[in-house]
Amino acid sequence: MEKTDSIQGFRFASVAAGIKRLPADRPDFALIVADMPSNCAGVTTTNLVAAAPVEITRKCLSRGVCQAILINSGNANAYTGERGIADAAALTQKVADGLGISSDLVIPMSTGVIGNPLPVERMRDRIPELMARLEPTCHMDVAKAIMTTDTLPKTVFLQGEVAAGGFTMLGMAKGAGMIAPNMATLLGVILTDAAVELDFLRESVMKAARYSFNSITIDGDTSTNDTLVIVAGGRDNPPAVSSRADREVFSSMLDTACKSLARQIVRDGEGATKVVEVRVCGAPDDDAARKVARAIAESPLVKTAFHGEDPNWGRIICSAGYAGVPFDPQHIDLFIGDVSIVNDGNLSSGDWESAAHGVMKSKEFTILLDLKSGEGEATILTTDLSEEYVTINADYRS
Amino acid sequence: MEKTDSIQGFRFASVAAGIKRLPADRPDFALIVADMPSNCAGVTTTNLVAAAPVEITRKCLSRGVCQAILINSGNANAYTGERGIADAAALTQKVADGLGISSDLVIPMSTGVIGNPLPVERMRDRIPELMARLEPTCHMDVAKAIMTTDTLPKTVFLQGEVAAGGFTMLGMAKGAGMIAPNMATLLGVILTDAAVELDFLRESVMKAARYSFNSITIDGDTSTNDTLVIVAGGRDNPPAVSSRADREVFSSMLDTACKSLARQIVRDGEGATKVVEVRVCGAPDDDAARKVARAIAESPLVKTAFHGEDPNWGRIICSAGYAGVPFDPQHIDLFIGDVSIVNDGNLSSGDWESAAHGVMKSKEFTILLDLKSGEGEATILTTDLSEEYVTINADYRS
Repeated sequence: MEKTDSIQGFRFASVAAGIKRLPADRPDFALIVADMPSNCAGVTTTNLVAAAPVEITRKCLSRGVCQAILINSGNANAYTGERGIADAAALTQKVADGLGISSDLVIPMSTGVIGNPLPVERMRDRIPELMARLEPTCHMDVAKAIMTTDTLPKTVFLQGEVAAGGFTMLGMAKGAGMIAPNMATLLGVILTDAAVELDFLRESVMKAARYSFNSITIDGDTSTNDTLVIVAGGRDNPPAVSSRADREVFSSMLDTACKSLARQIVRDGEGATKVVEVRVCGAPDDDAARKVARAIAESPLVKTAFHGEDPNWGRIICSAGYAGVPFDPQHIDLFIGDVSIVNDGNLSSGDWESAAHGVMKSKEFTILLDLKSGEGEATILTTDLSEEYVTINADYRS
Repeated sequence: MEKTDSIQGFRFASVAAGIKRLPADRPDFALIVADMPSNCAGVTTTNLVAAAPVEITRKCLSRGVCQAILINSGNANAYTGERGIADAAALTQKVADGLGISSDLVIPMSTGVIGNPLPVERMRDRIPELMARLEPTCHMDVAKAIMTTDTLPKTVFLQGEVAAGGFTMLGMAKGAGMIAPNMATLLGVILTDAAVELDFLRESVMKAARYSFNSITIDGDTSTNDTLVIVAGGRDNPPAVSSRADREVFSSMLDTACKSLARQIVRDGEGATKVVEVRVCGAPDDDAARKVARAIAESPLVKTAFHGEDPNWGRIICSAGYAGVPFDPQHIDLFIGDVSIVNDGNLSSGDWESAAHGVMKSKEFTILLDLKSGEGEATILTTDLSEEYVTINADYRS
């Protein structure tokens, strides 16, 4: 993505506020501002322990309108009690005052270490500078400022056409560990300069999240801070998404944007050297398929076998077996890439082993398990489990 | 445990049958024979994909009587279809013929790689040698022959007294990876030379398993082959466990034996450098406490923090939060060892961090989380997650 990619109606800025420990000059505080109040929708963590900014964001999403998003990395403002709420509110108020809008229109997002209060004074003092730096072309600065253990910024830029005219969708996300279905330490922001009716926006983001951010897993941990927000409008007189055909264009673009960001997150998973698409079909229903796909995708034994490029299919079938979903193991089909391993319950003949090992040498490959027990299907993207994952996370307070 | 420890009424033998790849002289095939048909009870895997020997064992356990146990390592005889059943039956028949008993009295157990047929001819040819080698004092040979990635054999030897006289309990187990509540690639055999009524034996083993083998987790994977069997009797005229006091003595010894073996398994967990007892109390009920304890005990982020000796308590609370159990995060207490980290929802004052880091330097320590939401409690034993775990399991076909 080139820095020349831009979206009408939104401006971006970041500063290094010293929220992260080191290095001190690494940007960790960012602001996105729309020209106009805009419809917004989103999804937040299912973790019972939701961070302070998540609680404020939920209120904003229930009203369905926002104009600014204030994001920091380095500190999650999670499990910080009433002080955490007050800190987040103080920061959004400062932004609102600067913009001359209601603080109800400012969404806060945080990511980082759980349990420490924000350095709120220092952050508040930098807000005027953030506002002064706002530029339409600086979205990449925001994408970088929200990174934690990410090694690369994640962005997506799409353009589409509805009856009322052309529109743009710009997305950015962070997340590299604590990633699990039902969100992750994932912050995602999708901006579009089209006008979208609120109910349809909500419906579209739920669907898009289910098949993207909620279909990836790195370590099975669901974070306290996961938030995905889409903001639609931004500019004055945005083209409206109105007809059924318009809606299909929009919804499909949103799916594409979310899937792209989700795949970028998995690719950049902590210590990941492989991206594996675990597809399960023939399950009693889609939820059952997801359960089986998730059991496979989160099994440490399966993930270490991926890392070792070892077609140890027994581990795959074993983890399917404990997913809690009924199927007949003696009639399943299993493929690694396009190599048939098990066919109707029987181990394939021929040299499937070296063929499958060859598939697994790729950086990205697919596992397909057909349970032959119904029409349900699901796909979960996962990574291998490497020594590097352990090293990253065993570092004292990573 | 000394080789002089012995139990009346049982004999033991092992041979190197070449079932394991390497080294060829490593014993991998073992036999335990009781002098008399004896009551037996046990628990087997909850995995939908149960290995062939597990299916045969279940039938034997439902009859409640056995006289011999034939065990191999190196090959799980799992996902081997009808051939797997026929192979296991052929081996138990050969043992039964040699002993002059019904094959219904022979329990088969297997552990190792999933999906390969047993080298059944080679194994059958070694059974006469196994029988010729049977000795009352050779239980340690069996404990060694059933090891897979275990680095140490696991045994327990206890003696007790009931009204009818003294009795002995001898246990052995294997298991070092694919360990999860509701059993593991765990094979466990407990032998006692006391006579125990079948219903009480069944009840006792269920209870003992719940608080031992079903309360440990290494990687969250539930294997296809998990089997725990207790055989009671063995000798002619064993002392009977009859009165209520006798039953308490017996049941408590069985609990102790199972807990000891379970702890030995966790200590020898693949790549484990720490054993951590995760205790959850104040949950709505015991099942809820188990869910929370298991979520903490299986979180890769928590386990890598254990490995890094990092009192990253936010990860502990985060994983409790996604366990699916209702509680009020703002009123919980959290301890690492005896160091208070969170007290009624507030981070403790003072230098809890270096104190907790000090606790985590030990090889064994405890985490206690009080949810303050009821009377439910549970304890799960777990390990840290190390680079070594990955290395062991990413080896091509470990």
